[in-house]
Amino acid sequence: MTRMPFCLAIAAAFFTSAAVSDPLPSWNDGETKTAIVEFVDSVTDPDADTYVPERDRIAVFDNDGTLWAEQPAYFQVLYALDILKEKAAADPSILTSDVLRAANDGDMEGMMANGLEGLLEIINISHSGITAEDFKASAHEWLTTTPHPTMGMEYAAMTYQPMVELLRYLRDEDFKTYIVSGGGIDFIRAISHEAYGIPPWQVVGSEGNASYSAESGTPTITKDGGISFVDDKEGKPVGIMSHIGQRPILAGGNSDGDFAMLEWTTAGEGPRFGLLIHHTDAEREFAYDREGHIGVLNRGLDEAAERGWTLVDMKQDWSRVWTGASE
Amino acid sequence: MTRMPFCLAIAAAFFTSAAVSDPLPSWNDGETKTAIVEFVDSVTDPDADTYVPERDRIAVFDNDGTLWAEQPAYFQVLYALDILKEKAAADPSILTSDVLRAANDGDMEGMMANGLEGLLEIINISHSGITAEDFKASAHEWLTTTPHPTMGMEYAAMTYQPMVELLRYLRDEDFKTYIVSGGGIDFIRAISHEAYGIPPWQVVGSEGNASYSAESGTPTITKDGGISFVDDKEGKPVGIMSHIGQRPILAGGNSDGDFAMLEWTTAGEGPRFGLLIHHTDAEREFAYDREGHIGVLNRGLDEAAERGWTLVDMKQDWSRVWTGASE
Repeated sequence: MTRMPFCLAIAAAFFTSAAVSDPLPSWNDGETKTAIVEFVDSVTDPDADTYVPERDRIAVFDNDGTLWAEQPAYFQVLYALDILKEKAAADPSILTSDVLRAANDGDMEGMMANGLEGLLEIINISHSGITAEDFKASAHEWLTTTPHPTMGMEYAAMTYQPMVELLRYLRDEDFKTYIVSGGGIDFIRAISHEAYGIPPWQVVGSEGNASYSAESGTPTITKDGGISFVDDKEGKPVGIMSHIGQRPILAGGNSDGDFAMLEWTTAGEGPRFGLLIHHTDAEREFAYDREGHIGVLNRGLDEAAERGWTLVDMKQDWSRVWTGASE
Repeated sequence: MTRMPFCLAIAAAFFTSAAVSDPLPSWNDGETKTAIVEFVDSVTDPDADTYVPERDRIAVFDNDGTLWAEQPAYFQVLYALDILKEKAAADPSILTSDVLRAANDGDMEGMMANGLEGLLEIINISHSGITAEDFKASAHEWLTTTPHPTMGMEYAAMTYQPMVELLRYLRDEDFKTYIVSGGGIDFIRAISHEAYGIPPWQVVGSEGNASYSAESGTPTITKDGGISFVDDKEGKPVGIMSHIGQRPILAGGNSDGDFAMLEWTTAGEGPRFGLLIHHTDAEREFAYDREGHIGVLNRGLDEAAERGWTLVDMKQDWSRVWTGASE
C-alpha cells in the first residue's frame, strides 16, 4: 500500500479530479455507478418530471462504515480508550470501577462486561468536564496523528475516497450533504470539514449533555457527560427532523442502524435514492456483514433489492478504497 | 394603518427594496443603522484586519419580540388556545383538568394557575399525537389566516419589516442567518422560509419528544408531547452549539432570555455584534421592557452600553414597523 501524509491525501481527495470529466473516478463502471449518476441527472434536469429544486436536494450519510472505516472498533471508542490510558497514567485514581480498570488494561471482555453502560462510563472520561472547543481540538489532534492499529494510516486518512468523491459530486450538483451518525456530534465535527468538506452545521449525531456558564468570567459551553440524544436506528429520522427539518431525498449507510433512515428517506414522494455500503473487501478493507459487534447488516441485505436500494459492493465497485492510500 | 394581504406583504418585503441602493430602507439614518452597516462592512472587506471569511459569518436572531411581535401573548400560545377550543368544541371530554377548562373558558388566571406545567399541558393538546408535517400545515394555516386580536393583521404579517431587511442584507453579504428561539422549532419552521427567507435547517428552537415508526406501513415521525430541550436563556448557546456547532459573530434579541446568547456571541475573538430590540413604540407596536410576563428586558438594558451592544429604539430607529402594513 502506498501511503500519503494526511494533508496530502486531503489535498488529493479534493482537487485531483476537478479537471477531469468523470465526477466519480474511484468508482468502477457498472450498475452501481450508473444508478448514482442517473439519479443525480434525473433530479437536476430542469426539463425532467423528476426534477427536484435545489432547496430540496438533501443527502444524508452515516459516518462509521459508510464514509470512513469502523473496524476493529469505532474510532471514537479507540480515542476514548487512548485518552483514558493517558489520564490514568497521570492519575490512576480516576480508575474508579472494574470497567475502567479493564479498559485501562486492554481487557476487552472486562470492558464490555457492563454493555453500553460501561462503554459510556469510558467515553465520559474523555468526553466530559471539557469545553466543546477543547474537546474538538483534542479529537482533531488524535485523528490526524494516531496510526490505526492494523492499517497504519492516521485515522483521518481512513475515509473512503469514492465516498469523498460522491459527496463532492452531490455538492457540485447543488445538493446539501449531511452526516447523520450514531457517533458523537462533536467528535465528527472535529474533522468533518477537513475530511469531507462538510461544515459543523451539517453534522447530526449522538449528543451529550452540555451547559453554558459565564460565572468564571469567560462564557463557556462545557460537556457535562451523559447522553441527551442517541442518533441511531429509529433515532436517525428523529435527528434529521430536529436538525434539518425536512426529509432528505438520498440516504446512504452500511448497517441496520441506518435502516430507518433509508426507509424514511425513500418512502417520500418523488425520486429517492437509498445506498448501502456492503463491506466485501477483506484484502483492502474489512469483510463483514451479518455477524459481529459492529456494522451488522442483516435486514438491509435481505430487503435492499425489493426496496430498490442500491447495494455497493466495495470490492467490485471501488477501484480505490482509501483517501489516504493509492489503493 | 394600511394593511396588505399577507402574500402581497411578503412579496413587498422581499422585492421592493431590491432595486434601490439602501439595503435597510426601513431603518432611519442614525447611530443604530450606521453601527450595523459599519460592522457588516468591516467583516466583509477582504483588505480589513477585521475581515471574517464567509463560512464564519453566522448571525443568530431570537424570534418572538425580535423578528415578529410577541404581545399580548406568544403567537404559539394563542395558536395552542385556538386549537384547544376547536378540539374541545368537537369533543369536550379532552378538557380533563382545571387548567384546560380555564383555558377553554378564556380564564387567563386559572390557565396560569399551574405555571409552566399548566401551559405545557395546553400546548400538548395541539402539539402531540400529530405528525411533524401535519403540525406544520396546521400552524401555517393558522398563522396566515387568523387575525391578531388587537392589530387585525394575520400573525404571519406581523414580522418587523426592518428585521426582514436586515436578514436579507446579511445574506446578501454572505452571512448565514439563523433563528434561535425559545419557541417551538416546528411552529417557527412552518412559516420561517416564507416570512424570513430562512430554511428549516436554520431554525433552532425548543423541541418536543418525537418518535419514528413504520409499523402502520407509512414511515412517520410523530410528535409525542413533552419537552426534550428548552432553547431559552442559558439553553440558547447550548442549542446553537448543538445545531450550528460554532459560535456566531452576530446575535440579536430583545429580552433577558437572549442575554446568554448575546454574551457568548460577543465574547468571541475578532469583530462581534450584539443587537437588542427595545420596544419603545406604544403607538405602532407595543411599549414594554422591565416589567410584564413576556419579553422582560432588565439586565440587557442595564449592561448593553458597557458591553458594546447596540440598542435599537424601535420608535426612533424604524421608519416602518410591520411587514404587513405600510407604517
